[in-house]
Amino acid sequence: MTRTDGRTPEQLRAWSITPNYLKHPAGSVLISCGNTRVICAATLEDKVPQWMKNQKVSGGWITSEYGMLPSATGERVKREASAGKQSGRTVEIQRLIGRSLRMACDLELLGERTCLIDCDVIDADGGTRCASISGGATALAIACRKNNIPAFKELVAAVSVGVVNGVPMLDLCFEEDSAAEVDMNVVMTSSGKLIEVQGTAEDKPFSRATLNELLDLAEHGLKQIFDMQRTILEQF
Amino acid sequence: MTRTDGRTPEQLRAWSITPNYLKHPAGSVLISCGNTRVICAATLEDKVPQWMKNQKVSGGWITSEYGMLPSATGERVKREASAGKQSGRTVEIQRLIGRSLRMACDLELLGERTCLIDCDVIDADGGTRCASISGGATALAIACRKNNIPAFKELVAAVSVGVVNGVPMLDLCFEEDSAAEVDMNVVMTSSGKLIEVQGTAEDKPFSRATLNELLDLAEHGLKQIFDMQRTILEQF
Amino acid sequence: MTRTDGRTPEQLRAWSITPNYLKHPAGSVLISCGNTRVICAATLEDKVPQWMKNQKVSGGWITSEYGMLPSATGERVKREASAGKQSGRTVEIQRLIGRSLRMACDLELLGERTCLIDCDVIDADGGTRCASISGGATALAIACRKNNIPAFKELVAAVSVGVVNGVPMLDLCFEEDSAAEVDMNVVMTSSGKLIEVQGTAEDKPFSRATLNELLDLAEHGLKQIFDMQRTILEQF
Amino acid sequence: MTRTDGRTPEQLRAWSITPNYLKHPAGSVLISCGNTRVICAATLEDKVPQWMKNQKVSGGWITSEYGMLPSATGERVKREASAGKQSGRTVEIQRLIGRSLRMACDLELLGERTCLIDCDVIDADGGTRCASISGGATALAIACRKNNIPAFKELVAAVSVGVVNGVPMLDLCFEEDSAAEVDMNVVMTSSGKLIEVQGTAEDKPFSRATLNELLDLAEHGLKQIFDMQRTILEQF
Amino acid sequence: MTRTDGRTPEQLRAWSITPNYLKHPAGSVLISCGNTRVICAATLEDKVPQWMKNQKVSGGWITSEYGMLPSATGERVKREASAGKQSGRTVEIQRLIGRSLRMACDLELLGERTCLIDCDVIDADGGTRCASISGGATALAIACRKNNIPAFKELVAAVSVGVVNGVPMLDLCFEEDSAAEVDMNVVMTSSGKLIEVQGTAEDKPFSRATLNELLDLAEHGLKQIFDMQRTILEQF
Amino acid sequence: MTRTDGRTPEQLRAWSITPNYLKHPAGSVLISCGNTRVICAATLEDKVPQWMKNQKVSGGWITSEYGMLPSATGERVKREASAGKQSGRTVEIQRLIGRSLRMACDLELLGERTCLIDCDVIDADGGTRCASISGGATALAIACRKNNIPAFKELVAAVSVGVVNGVPMLDLCFEEDSAAEVDMNVVMTSSGKLIEVQGTAEDKPFSRATLNELLDLAEHGLKQIFDMQRTILEQF
Repeated sequence: MTRTDGRTPEQLRAWSITPNYLKHPAGSVLISCGNTRVICAATLEDKVPQWMKNQKVSGGWITSEYGMLPSATGERVKREASAGKQSGRTVEIQRLIGRSLRMACDLELLGERTCLIDCDVIDADGGTRCASISGGATALAIACRKNNIPAFKELVAAVSVGVVNGVPMLDLCFEEDSAAEVDMNVVMTSSGKLIEVQGTAEDKPFSRATLNELLDLAEHGLKQIFDMQRTILEQF
Repeated sequence: MTRTDGRTPEQLRAWSITPNYLKHPAGSVLISCGNTRVICAATLEDKVPQWMKNQKVSGGWITSEYGMLPSATGERVKREASAGKQSGRTVEIQRLIGRSLRMACDLELLGERTCLIDCDVIDADGGTRCASISGGATALAIACRKNNIPAFKELVAAVSVGVVNGVPMLDLCFEEDSAAEVDMNVVMTSSGKLIEVQGTAEDKPFSRATLNELLDLAEHGLKQIFDMQRTILEQF
Repeated sequence: MTRTDGRTPEQLRAWSITPNYLKHPAGSVLISCGNTRVICAATLEDKVPQWMKNQKVSGGWITSEYGMLPSATGERVKREASAGKQSGRTVEIQRLIGRSLRMACDLELLGERTCLIDCDVIDADGGTRCASISGGATALAIACRKNNIPAFKELVAAVSVGVVNGVPMLDLCFEEDSAAEVDMNVVMTSSGKLIEVQGTAEDKPFSRATLNELLDLAEHGLKQIFDMQRTILEQF
Repeated sequence: MTRTDGRTPEQLRAWSITPNYLKHPAGSVLISCGNTRVICAATLEDKVPQWMKNQKVSGGWITSEYGMLPSATGERVKREASAGKQSGRTVEIQRLIGRSLRMACDLELLGERTCLIDCDVIDADGGTRCASISGGATALAIACRKNNIPAFKELVAAVSVGVVNGVPMLDLCFEEDSAAEVDMNVVMTSSGKLIEVQGTAEDKPFSRATLNELLDLAEHGLKQIFDMQRTILEQF
Repeated sequence: MTRTDGRTPEQLRAWSITPNYLKHPAGSVLISCGNTRVICAATLEDKVPQWMKNQKVSGGWITSEYGMLPSATGERVKREASAGKQSGRTVEIQRLIGRSLRMACDLELLGERTCLIDCDVIDADGGTRCASISGGATALAIACRKNNIPAFKELVAAVSVGVVNGVPMLDLCFEEDSAAEVDMNVVMTSSGKLIEVQGTAEDKPFSRATLNELLDLAEHGLKQIFDMQRTILEQF
Repeated sequence: MTRTDGRTPEQLRAWSITPNYLKHPAGSVLISCGNTRVICAATLEDKVPQWMKNQKVSGGWITSEYGMLPSATGERVKREASAGKQSGRTVEIQRLIGRSLRMACDLELLGERTCLIDCDVIDADGGTRCASISGGATALAIACRKNNIPAFKELVAAVSVGVVNGVPMLDLCFEEDSAAEVDMNVVMTSSGKLIEVQGTAEDKPFSRATLNELLDLAEHGLKQIFDMQRTILEQF
């Protein structure tokens, strides 16, 4: 069985990472996976959130904000800044990115710093949260290396998997995602441990066996994404 | 090894469901699990969201709103109505509840109706989102039965599992949840299929083996919760 | 003449107060009057509002927040947290509760503390603001006693009265309240002084004579409510 | 005993009403009482609020909005438009004005119209809500007469009374209001019936006897205000 | 060619300035130009904005807020405080007023003070932003003189010009403004230098020659406005 | 005299326009001027704003939204979507872009359509509003040509000019803009007419002679930008 864009079920889309995409932030990349493109920028600030001070938590913090250009999608979406609030989807995604990226660093070694990862989607064709995590981790690693901060522990990447027309598939594009019965995002460390598993029955509940097939596919794809990230980081 | 409240790792807290807790809504319950208490109310409205009309989607819709009394927690939390917005946590939870409960019904058979499930936490001691799903599904089932709506397909319930001090455990209380290395919520149907799996490394990444241990524990606990729900529904 | 629920005009509904209804707050009760049920919780914080510091006002402060579960009424009301603001009615009610409860304490003796009284309506059938004041005062008294704070001066309670079909009546239920020509809330101290009198012509203006009849009815009802509060407080 | 501005306890401040103060609205006045000045404008719109249509209520509607120029007070207050919300005090006041003015008209005879009364305080020295009601009623009457709308029934006016240093007084200025033990606003019809009685213990609870003294003072002052309104209306 | 109100193209409307219009602020005027009336009030505060402290900018600051009574226009406009936000037009105008008035003072000599100029339009018939600047500068000068603050450098005034039916005209009223092809606001110092030139093609683009004609007209009108301001300031 | 980046006062920075930069919108470009980069996207919708319907205005509408990636500037700016509102600067800029681009089209010929131009700044180094207008006009022209809409009349472009250290200069970068005494944005049509002239004294007022020098510089720069736009449009 082949897919709408000719891939086999276990095949990634074309992924690429362009480092130093922006002029100002400490680290930045443009990450593409198929037609999805996300600008990821890591900004370092010499302060920590108020709640850390209040609760006397030592070390630093990593957090993320996610946005989408209004014209990134087939049908233009309302600009959240003019709507006056972020959608529930946006809030959910940026919380996921933040949690995932905190696993990439030793927060104690980050020192009294906050690293804010902005992920802004320029073109959306499915998988924007996974691209944001994979690109954001790369921008974070670059920011740490450029500033000689020894906090970075290991790479983090994410990929989507799902069941479409009964077939488990890797790295869904928007069209596949819209038709998926089960949709799952898997976030891993480069040493092969799970950070986050979010599997959702979109249309019908799924078995433990299906869950395992999807996890296998995700591991297969993530290995290739880690290789790409490593190649980029060699330059820094 | 025993837990802070004397349970074994694979033991649920005391769960109970009180049906018809409120006077007005179509279906309602008070659900308790340990010291956590949530009022779940199902309201039926003879209309569907605007987006369904715009996109000409037939059938009905199920959605959820989640809230917490300011005094439900050890340290009072700011009232979201006076803060002027719902927190990211609230938004994330009510999206999860809505997605999960939609799997309990045949939306086509629901007809041009919206069922809104309000889940309001009175006392919080961990596991409020799982209690909300389990209680919400019961309220939803009651509302359908009382109004002779044939849309209800099967029960849905949720339970939390996690790794605390290296030990996988079922149904974490707040104290355990705060100390957990891995935290997972599992939503299932009464026929044993998965609806949602959300596993998160809070402190350190986890292996596929741990994921499987946690899923086993969750299945064990969910069987008991389904039995409790069935007993309640027999009255209707 | 008898009323829709069989009471005589000068008869209260069934009132009851359940203390210690919540696990966490310093003082809490569930108060019921007829089908109206309100959870009242008193939280103590060791700080005072910013304006007191700015204006160098000594002593403490008592304030209140009021809310209603969306499903507390016959027709579900929109959740204020998701609407993003509190309604004018909510704001007006919580200001009344705060003003009334401040009369129950010697703010100087409260010390540099704020007592915040949360009143959350679970079931609404008329008289929710009066139930909130009467229950809130009880929760406040419990919180002071449990924490050995000598600020509590005397009990405060409130009851509604009104003219329905030309007849002055005590403690209106929702159906009566909707049909009332005159509607009045009376807040008193247990020593028989007035704290707040809010009489409103809903349908036609009223005479001084009617005002006096209504005040007599209110005093009659409030005596019974004070007795109930005193009985509860004896336990603390 | 004389007051800070030399008045006797039962004496009104200097009141005056300037009709047609604004160019555009259907009716408008500038009302002054002592140093308090309020612009009141009545706008007629040929539509009714959505809730009246939904609930199939016939006739028209009268509502009010209240505001204060930031520089109307001794210490500048934050502009509500830039704060992004109206304060609780503002909401409470404009609800009171709207309720009071609805008693001045036969809403059925108003027809399918809304009359919106804007009350904007230019200078504030106590009694702004009473000035708004008294001025708003005059603007409303002018708007009805100029447009031959037979809905206007009778005049409405309001005045403040209070207990200052143990002495009941009429028409408090800001300095007296700040020092008052009891503060009361009385809204009446020109035929001598009560529309709204709002008495509040600011500092200590009060007796029924005091309540009666204050109501006597209010009636005394309101007679003079009704005379002034009638003189203005003769011109229309 | 004569205009709707009988003026020649190079003629101002009737302008007048009433000083000390409000009781409380440091300086205030009511400024009228034709049927447009604006209350301008200058408040002095002994503090500077947070950003000045953060950026260690010395001296003081001048800023402005602009508002319009809902009933100031032919068709009532929604109250911005109840809408919950200021319109884009309001924001744009108050930024212009603030920038213009900062040119009237030596901010260094203002010392660690903020002067906030409130401009509230009572009646609107075109030219409200120019009236606000001209009246605001007068209020600012009065506030400085009354408080012996040596920061005031020179007067600032503004006037509108435009092309209507092909004819360049001075000081447009609302009717002319609505029909204008080109619309321009010119802000000057009393020594004849430009502070702000904002020319906008409303209907069709314009030539450099037209721009120059409009600037000539504006200079002609501004001389008369400066004379009026000077006459007022002689009293202080 | 040479400038910080080696240019002469009358020299533009390097400008370039990349068409079809995004996948989805009807027309899009990436425009660069020096280190400033803006994504401009034109979306066509088959409806007009509600106010056009209410006021029975025929034809179509063109409007614009402007945003800046948080990491586009040297110091990260707060994301407006998470702040919950657009800044005054953003509102002012998007109103300017909208007004300017409406001059590029015959709105009657646009038909019952809205064209929304999104301008999102990726890297900011001064001149972002001028780049947005110049890029937005190009995206608008592409959208019209690709969809055979005959509404496009002529090109529109904008450039900044200013006085820095007493010297009039073309196309200021951020460093120059921050130090400018006078700052001006000039929007023109390709036929050489003015659409908008916004000259502001940032530090000291300026003479008519300086205004004319700046306009000459702007015309000089705009000719080169129009040439670049024309070259791009030849491809469509």
